[in-house]
Amino acid sequence: MSKQAPVSEALKNRVILITGAYGGLGRELSLACAKQGATVLLLGRSMPHLEKLYDEIEEAGAPQPGIIPLDLEGATPKDYDDIAATIEKEFGQLNGLIHCAAQLGSLTPVPLYTMQDWQKVMLTNMTGPLALTQALLPLLDRSAMASLLFTLDDHNTAYWGAYGVSKAALRSMARILADEQENLVDENGYPRVSVNMINPGPMRTRLRAKAFPGEQPEEVPPPSEKVAAFVELIARADPKLTCADIRL
Amino acid sequence: MSKQAPVSEALKNRVILITGAYGGLGRELSLACAKQGATVLLLGRSMPHLEKLYDEIEEAGAPQPGIIPLDLEGATPKDYDDIAATIEKEFGQLNGLIHCAAQLGSLTPVPLYTMQDWQKVMLTNMTGPLALTQALLPLLDRSAMASLLFTLDDHNTAYWGAYGVSKAALRSMARILADEQENLVDENGYPRVSVNMINPGPMRTRLRAKAFPGEQPEEVPPPSEKVAAFVELIARADPKLTCADIRL
Repeated sequence: MSKQAPVSEALKNRVILITGAYGGLGRELSLACAKQGATVLLLGRSMPHLEKLYDEIEEAGAPQPGIIPLDLEGATPKDYDDIAATIEKEFGQLNGLIHCAAQLGSLTPVPLYTMQDWQKVMLTNMTGPLALTQALLPLLDRSAMASLLFTLDDHNTAYWGAYGVSKAALRSMARILADEQENLVDENGYPRVSVNMINPGPMRTRLRAKAFPGEQPEEVPPPSEKVAAFVELIARADPKLTCADIRL
Repeated sequence: MSKQAPVSEALKNRVILITGAYGGLGRELSLACAKQGATVLLLGRSMPHLEKLYDEIEEAGAPQPGIIPLDLEGATPKDYDDIAATIEKEFGQLNGLIHCAAQLGSLTPVPLYTMQDWQKVMLTNMTGPLALTQALLPLLDRSAMASLLFTLDDHNTAYWGAYGVSKAALRSMARILADEQENLVDENGYPRVSVNMINPGPMRTRLRAKAFPGEQPEEVPPPSEKVAAFVELIARADPKLTCADIRL
């Protein structure tokens, strides 16, 4: 018997994968989705961090989560295919995918950014999410009320380098994909996979602290204040909604 | 003695590198800059195409151009360093760099784009231009009236895939770089390197014909109608101007 009843059942019987699962925002989203009844699949680099979050979710009395250790920076096409096959075998469905994983790289003038560091950021923030999306879209497409969320950010100003560029590229990719999926509808006329974008704005995370070292953490809201908008989209509270580009 | 006098001397004594030099737009820009007195360095993949354009420029009585055979898709860091060293040695300066090179890839839904094809487009349209810019910026910075131009395009809609994403990424990179360079000024208070962006809009080119196979070529203007705006920026007609984002 669970130690604690779920907060709600808005996500009951849904399987939702969250990348960057133990990061500042990812952790809050993972806990929130689990507490609303979802089976969350926690994707991230560090096994100890994933296991710690797994335990927290279990202790909260939420459905048993899954763990997917993966480094988007070094993942191979086979890794993505294996993840898709494992989810299909173990869970039989995937109703949501939330891209939270991101790395800042460093705030460095474009001329001084090494190509190696640039490519690492592009892999984590853009190319990895693309490859994972490609691998999982067939499964999302076959699952009920499927929802795909991209966490975006907009920094096209001095020193934002690879982070700014990777997020602009991810935004473009998300828009293109959303436009393509919009007319692929189910028997109710709803998009089979809704694709939406959220820029959560400033949040009290490690990434933010690294980018704004002079800022007091209390000056920006904690990520827990941002999760409701994500949960609403991943639950498809409005089943017709797709292609939304939200700035919190 | 030249067979024909230059049209004007707006670009006299300037050395200007143009990528995609024999493409639809690049060819018109190369001819226009040469006819205004610039020594144009023609960068492109195909030696026969470069040589043909070289001959045309010579026959027009314009300054003798240079040829830089390079495939942005397969170039190495050493290639970029070699180009910078050669330009410095042979010409002693570089006053302009116009990024025209682009490949369309294919109009394909995001889920079906192979990662290999995706990366080829990213290399030509985004990563290659970044690497070339990094290699040549020190030389631009030391040369009089330096100007850096990025040719952009905006297609964040269905099926534009890697092309749309690469151009969005290039726009972000250009904006970040322009913002960084804005306050690096010369003794007159002018930006040492002006960085500007132009979206030329629809043009009668091979890339356009590939993307819009049903369109009659006569429906869209030839690239020759677009060059004046580029030449004005590369000549720094307004020496204060930088960070401009122009849509023709």
